[in-house]
Amino acid sequence: MATLTIPHPVPSAAEDAEHIRKAVQGWGTDEKALILVLAHRDAAQRKHIQLAYEEMYNENLIKRLESELTGHFERAVYRWIFDPIDREAVMAYVALKKTFNYQVIIEIACVNSSKELLAVKEAYHARYKHSLEEDVAAHTVGDFRKLLVALVSTYRYGGDEIDISLAKSEARILQDVINQKKLNHEETIRILGTRSKAQLNATFNCYREDYGTPIEESLAGEAPNEFASALRMAIGCIVNPQPYFVEVLHDALSKPDTDEDTLTRVIVMHAEKDLRGIKEMYQSRNNVPLEQAVRQKTSGDYKTFLLALIGN
Amino acid sequence: MATLTIPHPVPSAAEDAEHIRKAVQGWGTDEKALILVLAHRDAAQRKHIQLAYEEMYNENLIKRLESELTGHFERAVYRWIFDPIDREAVMAYVALKKTFNYQVIIEIACVNSSKELLAVKEAYHARYKHSLEEDVAAHTVGDFRKLLVALVSTYRYGGDEIDISLAKSEARILQDVINQKKLNHEETIRILGTRSKAQLNATFNCYREDYGTPIEESLAGEAPNEFASALRMAIGCIVNPQPYFVEVLHDALSKPDTDEDTLTRVIVMHAEKDLRGIKEMYQSRNNVPLEQAVRQKTSGDYKTFLLALIGN
Repeated sequence: MATLTIPHPVPSAAEDAEHIRKAVQGWGTDEKALILVLAHRDAAQRKHIQLAYEEMYNENLIKRLESELTGHFERAVYRWIFDPIDREAVMAYVALKKTFNYQVIIEIACVNSSKELLAVKEAYHARYKHSLEEDVAAHTVGDFRKLLVALVSTYRYGGDEIDISLAKSEARILQDVINQKKLNHEETIRILGTRSKAQLNATFNCYREDYGTPIEESLAGEAPNEFASALRMAIGCIVNPQPYFVEVLHDALSKPDTDEDTLTRVIVMHAEKDLRGIKEMYQSRNNVPLEQAVRQKTSGDYKTFLLALIGN
Repeated sequence: MATLTIPHPVPSAAEDAEHIRKAVQGWGTDEKALILVLAHRDAAQRKHIQLAYEEMYNENLIKRLESELTGHFERAVYRWIFDPIDREAVMAYVALKKTFNYQVIIEIACVNSSKELLAVKEAYHARYKHSLEEDVAAHTVGDFRKLLVALVSTYRYGGDEIDISLAKSEARILQDVINQKKLNHEETIRILGTRSKAQLNATFNCYREDYGTPIEESLAGEAPNEFASALRMAIGCIVNPQPYFVEVLHDALSKPDTDEDTLTRVIVMHAEKDLRGIKEMYQSRNNVPLEQAVRQKTSGDYKTFLLALIGN
């Protein structure tokens, strides 16, 4: 469930555009007024506001906001204002071209259903005149390339049917590659890169039952190794996104220097979708409400904006 | 252009179903009557005939035809009667599970546009409760797996934009791997597996201009090597499907034992699409009309059916 809250009745797109115009006009910007509108509208409403703003004031709203806002607050608003599918295309592009953050690529490839991932890939084509696959391949090498290209390329079967004997045999293959410390084996990439989510879930259940440890723990037991940690991320995103995102948020908030990019990403990408469940699990696992942790680790308009998205 | 011919006015689906019923009822089967209907109806018309037949006679037409017909004629009718997208899903499945014919997989992956390939993958999901990717991966190993999985997985950009400096640099990479006899290099698979068709076309043009030979010829110059021939197939299907299919038909018809499976595949898959161009190029390259070659190398109802599809 979402944490986004929308007032009832909701103002018209023209009224919202007018409020935004007042907030950005003249000296200084009224960030509170911006947050009061933007952080409480869903994707379709935000789209209508953008169209109304452009029509009424003959100016692109996203560009105007970029020129008015700064820092983490600007980046958070810039990510939030997009439609969710377009946003993922933009975030994949930024992750590849600017920050090389493979975690973003794994999340987009593995959390989405096949149809959602396809929609992101189509948005990527339309926006950048390239495929996500070719840009991932061109920005990576070796084992990472093999893994990431496989994850972004595949069009997994989305049904619930599973084959238990296949799950057992592929759990054994995975145990062999982990035991032999050959994580980059082509079989690992074949299994993670092609099987359906339901089948992979069955495989990881067999792994736990037959070998006594969750596969994520076996992988965490490896010597610090980026490829092993990429595999853990992919597995988390495929079969257990909620605890995965709780861990990501916790890591971002507990570093000595808060990782605002990650914090923004997770909150913006999930506020409209499933942040409520992530927030509840965050509190039960860490004994502190997510709002409180965010309040302690952020400041200013950025803090206000994130707290509004978290449903404060 | 298609070679399929359809009478004007075309009978109703119910009239066609009735003619087919008469042809399959009682002792023996009237194959000529079947061909007169089935080989002269497009995919939508064949679908309506199947539905009308099932409704009128409470019997599945495809199953009835399977029980009435035999040999190459049966297989050709069985392939022809499907909708083109469903047919490719069925042909991919048969190629993987029964005959292991990787050429079929390469054709389906590389001739289709991204959207057409996606539709085939969706039909494959619906029919077999698996993804094409996982079945290709599970039936192959090593370099072949890497190549074929990359080709079936990718969702290429479909636009016309090209980057000439990228084309030049990737032509050089391909020349290096060919010179060093390292065709299975990960760069070969990255380039062929991720770039758009327009970009690959530009790359192969640069290759020819900069190194004086078409890349297909450089690959043909390799010692007999299945991987090199798979690469040649993929390149042909991506940038030059018409001469590719002319060569495939010529090979199938000029073997001492005619390769009926291949002959059926190419004619059935293209009769409704682009067989006219293939037929014209066949004649100009081989100095013999395709119809004449087919007439010499096939017989019986199979011959009559193929000639009807070729537009005789």
